[in-house]
Amino acid sequence: MQVIDLTHTIEEGMPAYPGSEGVRLESLAGIDPDGYNELMLHFPTHTGTHIDCGRHFLAGGPDTSRNPERFIGRGLVIDCQRQGKARIIAKTYLQQFESRLKQADFVIFHTGWSRFWGTTDYFSGFPVPDQEAARYLTGFQLKGIGTDTVSFDHIDSHEFQIHKIFLAAGFTLIENLANLKKLPMEGFLFSCLPLKIKDGDGSPVRAVGVLGTTGN
Amino acid sequence: MQVIDLTHTIEEGMPAYPGSEGVRLESLAGIDPDGYNELMLHFPTHTGTHIDCGRHFLAGGPDTSRNPERFIGRGLVIDCQRQGKARIIAKTYLQQFESRLKQADFVIFHTGWSRFWGTTDYFSGFPVPDQEAARYLTGFQLKGIGTDTVSFDHIDSHEFQIHKIFLAAGFTLIENLANLKKLPMEGFLFSCLPLKIKDGDGSPVRAVGVLGTTGN
Repeated sequence: MQVIDLTHTIEEGMPAYPGSEGVRLESLAGIDPDGYNELMLHFPTHTGTHIDCGRHFLAGGPDTSRNPERFIGRGLVIDCQRQGKARIIAKTYLQQFESRLKQADFVIFHTGWSRFWGTTDYFSGFPVPDQEAARYLTGFQLKGIGTDTVSFDHIDSHEFQIHKIFLAAGFTLIENLANLKKLPMEGFLFSCLPLKIKDGDGSPVRAVGVLGTTGN
Repeated sequence: MQVIDLTHTIEEGMPAYPGSEGVRLESLAGIDPDGYNELMLHFPTHTGTHIDCGRHFLAGGPDTSRNPERFIGRGLVIDCQRQGKARIIAKTYLQQFESRLKQADFVIFHTGWSRFWGTTDYFSGFPVPDQEAARYLTGFQLKGIGTDTVSFDHIDSHEFQIHKIFLAAGFTLIENLANLKKLPMEGFLFSCLPLKIKDGDGSPVRAVGVLGTTGN
């Protein structure tokens, strides 16, 4: 079994969605003199590599606390690195993967944008699916959609229409994924299990791809 | 594939280790009027169902940020419900599982103590392994040890000797597990993937057992 870490490290000063609260890691105790280390964590639910649940945009939508099987399943990586210049992941591009989409639980867009993590370029110009592509994906029995960008909507979006199309379909969204180039296209288990936060609209996660195991 | 949730819910007022900081879930935004829900999380690394990494007690010990394969593997549940009165899980009791211990990555003590979660009884009188039992377990190629109690040392311990024996052996410790009665003895994948916190001594986790998949 091989576990591929698809997660950015949570640390003070890390990149955050424009205008959002940052991360604070407060020392509660240290080995000298307390005999042990302990940190107090302070950060928003949408920190770093994280999920959005329905509740993020939909009143009464699903939260982080129930049905953990929604957060683990068969992954399919779609290479979208050539879609960068167009800033759009189109339905016509996705259709070539139709037979694979029928076998997948999670679709993961590999846009290559994680190479800009830690720079201002990370927050603009990244490719996202358009509404036609998003509606096309809601026709499959998926658990969720992941991406290595900060959002499924362009950074200047006020309506978050792509988020809402996916969340209304019951999908979980995973943003700010890392290391996607280390994944095969298929044949791995993807896990984005969130903290079990009461009424949680989302959660930072330790996203991983697990090879050498099977799920159905 | 079936996913069994082994995690207590994170919420304000939840049980916490005596003297430790509590949980605060602060609303940063609400659908009315902001158009979306978002929470700010405030809690210690050892909140609810959580892991201890080496770094919790050992300077320079492993932290949460590296080698995620340490946090997922084949589980073995050991029924310790009859060890409650003695308050001790003894080597002589564990030895009957020797052949199974050789095949496991994670040993999970099912003491039944999670039935006291939310009451003062949860924090005293729970069974823990003694030093002889702990040293016996370090002789196996394990990734970690889990329990449905608040600690691997008695609540009045100042030295945390059992923690230190396990952590010095490179094990991850998982405390405050829930719903263990829903697990089979073997034949499941156990996951306790932590948040990827820089220099993290531990992390709350979404602990699960996954049935219908294989790992080796």
